[in-house]
This record gives sequence, C-alpha cells and structure tokens, in this order.
Amino acid sequence: MIQIALDAMGGDNAPSATVEGAIEAAKVSEGRYKIVLTGPEEILKAELAKHNYTGDEISIQHAPQQVAMDDSPSDVLKTKQDSGLVTCVGLQKKGLVQASVSAGNSGAMMAACLMLLGRTGKISRPAIACGVPSIKRPVVLLDCGANVDEKPLHLLHFAICGSTYAEHVLKYENPRVGLLNIGEEEKKGPEVIQETHQILKKAPINFIGNIESRDIVKGDVDVVVAPGYAGNIVLKLMEGFYEYHKALFGVIDSPEGEIFEKGWNYSNIGAGLLLGLNGTGLITHGRADAPTIKMAILNAYNQAVNEVSVKISQKLEELA
Amino acid sequence: MIQIALDAMGGDNAPSATVEGAIEAAKVSEGRYKIVLTGPEEILKAELAKHNYTGDEISIQHAPQQVAMDDSPSDVLKTKQDSGLVTCVGLQKKGLVQASVSAGNSGAMMAACLMLLGRTGKISRPAIACGVPSIKRPVVLLDCGANVDEKPLHLLHFAICGSTYAEHVLKYENPRVGLLNIGEEEKKGPEVIQETHQILKKAPINFIGNIESRDIVKGDVDVVVAPGYAGNIVLKLMEGFYEYHKALFGVIDSPEGEIFEKGWNYSNIGAGLLLGLNGTGLITHGRADAPTIKMAILNAYNQAVNEVSVKISQKLEELA
Repeated sequence: MIQIALDAMGGDNAPSATVEGAIEAAKVSEGRYKIVLTGPEEILKAELAKHNYTGDEISIQHAPQQVAMDDSPSDVLKTKQDSGLVTCVGLQKKGLVQASVSAGNSGAMMAACLMLLGRTGKISRPAIACGVPSIKRPVVLLDCGANVDEKPLHLLHFAICGSTYAEHVLKYENPRVGLLNIGEEEKKGPEVIQETHQILKKAPINFIGNIESRDIVKGDVDVVVAPGYAGNIVLKLMEGFYEYHKALFGVIDSPEGEIFEKGWNYSNIGAGLLLGLNGTGLITHGRADAPTIKMAILNAYNQAVNEVSVKISQKLEELA
Repeated sequence: MIQIALDAMGGDNAPSATVEGAIEAAKVSEGRYKIVLTGPEEILKAELAKHNYTGDEISIQHAPQQVAMDDSPSDVLKTKQDSGLVTCVGLQKKGLVQASVSAGNSGAMMAACLMLLGRTGKISRPAIACGVPSIKRPVVLLDCGANVDEKPLHLLHFAICGSTYAEHVLKYENPRVGLLNIGEEEKKGPEVIQETHQILKKAPINFIGNIESRDIVKGDVDVVVAPGYAGNIVLKLMEGFYEYHKALFGVIDSPEGEIFEKGWNYSNIGAGLLLGLNGTGLITHGRADAPTIKMAILNAYNQAVNEVSVKISQKLEELA
C-alpha cells in the first residue's frame, strides 16, 4: 500500500480542487494507495463533508500555516514548517508516506523536497521532468526549468533520470533519448551541448543523438534532455500553442479535437516530476483543477510503486 | 529602383519555384524593383520561356556552378565563386544590386554574406531574424540559430537589429523588445541572460523586460531577443506544431483555418533575415515554393529600400 501526501492548500483552486481531486483518485484506488491531505483540519473536514466523503482512503494531517505563491522558498522552509506544503514532504521524510504532491509555490516545493528528502545516489542536480504531447505517445522532457547554467555532468544525470522514468513508469521499452540541439550534427550547437553529446554516447542509455525541437512533436524520441532554460522554453511554448489554438478555434468538437485537447491541455498533463530526489515529489500546475490533481496522484503512485528513485540511483552506479 | 539578386538554383524546388516566384514578384513590382536571376543562363532562359515571360523586370546573370545543400560553407566560398549563391552576393558587393536572396545552402549563404558584405558599423555578430506568428501581429525573433554561446554584448546587438527592423520595415511604433527567459523576475535564468537584462535596460530601445515563450504566441511583445540556441528551438517547435496540427486536423476550411494557415505555414513566412550585415541578405526555407520566393523578394525590397543596414549602424552609435 502506497501512502501519498497532498498539499491540500496548494494552488489557485485549493482546497476545493485538491480535495475533489483526492476524492476522485480515491475512487479508483482499488486498495493500491491512500491519500493524506495536509492543511488546516477544520477546512479540509468541511470540504470532504461537502462531497459526503466517508471512505477510509483519505485522511487529514493538520497543518495550519499558509504558503503564498510568492513566498521565498527559504522563508517557507524556515518559518512555515506547519504548512500543508512543508508537511506533505515532512511526512515522507519520516517514512509515513511514499510520495508528496503540491500545486502550490513550486520553488518552495522544490526546496522542501531537496532539503528534506535529499538527492538519490550520486545525482548532481535533480530536474523537473514533464510529459509533453507528440503525434505518437507522450515524450519525457527534462529539465523544465529547475536548473540553469548546467554542466555536461548535470545533463548526463538528467538523461539517466528521464530514461529510467520512461522505462519503469511509462513502460517504454529501451526508450530513445535525444539531446535537444539546433541540428543533427555532433559539431553543432553550444559548447556544453557538444560536450554533453560525447558523454551521452558512452552512457548506459539508448542515446539517439541530437534532436531538433520539431522532432519532439513528431514523437521521434521518448526522452528529451535539455538545459532548464531550453526545456522551460519548450514547455511554455507548448502551453502558448494550446492557448492560441483555443483562442482561434475554440474547443473543436470532433475525435481529432478530443485528441488535441487531451494531449495539449496542460491542465490534463498532471504534474512536473522531480526526478533525482531520494523519494517522490510532484509539482502540478498552479492552475490545477480536480482532474489535474487526480492525475497527479495517480502519477505519484506510479512513480512511488515503481521505485523510480531507487532505480535512478542503481542506474547511476553503472556510469564509468 | 532597387535591384534584387536571386540565387535561382538554390533550394529543393529550384529552378522552377525560384523562377516562378521571381515572375510573380515582378508582376507586382510597379517599378519599385528589378530582379537578377543568378544561375546557368540556358536553364534559366528555358525556365522563363516556359512562363512566356518577356518583361524587363527580370534579367539573368550567368553563374554555371552548382552548390549542394551539404557543401561546406568554406568550400563554397573557395571553389564555387561562379555559383548562383556566391554570385547573388557578389553582385551586391560590386554595388550592382542592393539585396541578395537564396533558398539554398544556408550556412554557405551566411558565410558569403559575412565574407563579401561584412558587418554594418560596430555590430559584433549578425543574427538571423524571422517573423513568427502570434495571435496579434507577427513577432520578430532573433537569433534563430546563426550564433551559439553568445555574450551579453552580442545579445544587445541582436536587440538593436531586431528593434530597428521592426520599426523601419514592419513600421511598428516604438516596438516592444523582450528578452526570452524562464520567468519575469530579473534574477531568473542563466547568468548570461541576467547580465543581458541589465544591459538592455540601458539600451536605446523600448525594453519591456523578460518574457516567457508563451508570451510570443500571445503577441505581447514585438521583438524577442534570444541566444541562437533558444531562438532556433522556438522557431523549429513552431514548425513542428504546424506539422502536428496539419497531421491531426488537415487544413481547416474556415476563416480561422485560413488565419492559422497564413500565420503558421512556415513556407508562407518568406525568409530569415540576416541582420547586422553591411547590406541586405535573406535566406529562405530550403523547401521554398514560388509564393515563398515571391514573399522573400518583397521582403528583401522592403529591407533594402528602408536601408535597415544603415539604420542599424546609426542606432549602434547611440550606445554609450
């Protein structure tokens, strides 16, 4: 049985979206996981009562303090240890849950995970990974903006993290790992990317070489490794496309429209995965609604039950 | 009268697309410009004859050598001076034309322009600029991949080039210049971007601060300054999005579908502009068809007649 802690006060639509999302996730648990809501007990009890929830898949861990979206991460860690955000990670540190999910202040969530859980094995820097749409199946993109000014070693570790996740959670066989660049040739692109290319060639992954950003949407790759600056640009441009498309066409009422909505509506994507932690941490979009939260909980379950963190650590040992 | 040289043998669809595009452009010249086709005389004469062209807006400059898409730029410059590509730039160096356009080997075209025309004023590195779609009006994005590992000074010069182009060719009043980053805050992002932010604040442009990639498609900016690595990723992801959309929905037969097709079909975009040259050089997509070539010629005319190269040099003088 996996226990998942959810920061019930995190995000623009909390606590109504978080509690509703938790209830929806509980309905499909089938005994696989339970959910601990972290936040002010009275508020969360009232929210559960609105839905007449009486099951035993959801419990509450009282955490009265509030974290604002613009609180500085270090302040949150120092002065808001009784917040839903810090508590949902703290429970994992104590071994009481196996995964932590927040739609709140993402910098603070990243900091709390790093500080309380630490890094797995020899990882140099954890990364945020996201599943992004392609014409074929979802593609794992990392780093999505947790890091800047990376060295080749960091990018190598991102590649290990992403490949392990794709293999063990998404169940992609021998996932194809590509390096985001401006051309296929090894000698193209920034120096750090050229150096990373040489290192990835020797790594225990299925490295397919440089890819261009258009290859992501074509689905010709399973894991895209990029510096956080570039990964974040890709992720947010995809969000921009979705918004543009919706502004121009509205929601298209056809099977194709449904495929587009499912793939590109970033509130469906679930969460950014913090890979490289000694544990399981997920950050969802601040605008997360109940389906997003449900998806993030399912995602957290899959990551925890497949012990991605342990497998990443093992894979790192294979490096020369 | 502006004279424009077109590398008639450049691109996947040359010479039929280039010659047809030139004829289409000639039809709307209204005495503003003439076109010089550079390439093998017999072939081009035959191509013009197919269209029964007998006007005086188009002439031919014989250039028998062929440049392949994968020829190395330095080889082209050294051994293929009688190619359509080198000749179309060479004519500008001699003062016989005011602009040069090629759909051929883009590295070779860039090299030919740099070597034969040189840089304008105190520019440190020329950039490739492209007009990219937004929900409002086209946005100028640069650099699109001519450069890597830029320093803040290079990015400052890109900003000057892009702002000058937007003002004098697109006639955008006081164009809003944004720096592509992963968040609005000055202290976010890679070190080179943070340093560039401080320099752009003092530059003689309308700097609106950091923008995120989603702001490009929202049209909340007129000129986007980015390192070539990031700009290229944006440009190619936009192409990928168009391809994805077409694969999923086909061409949507509605006024909105037309807007989308016009904005996002990159063969409609015309050309990448080489800004910062002592002259006017344009590189179109290798897959350019006749309408793309026509658009590129009109674009070249606008850039040359507005003396963008001179205006960039003047603007650079305003820098402290």
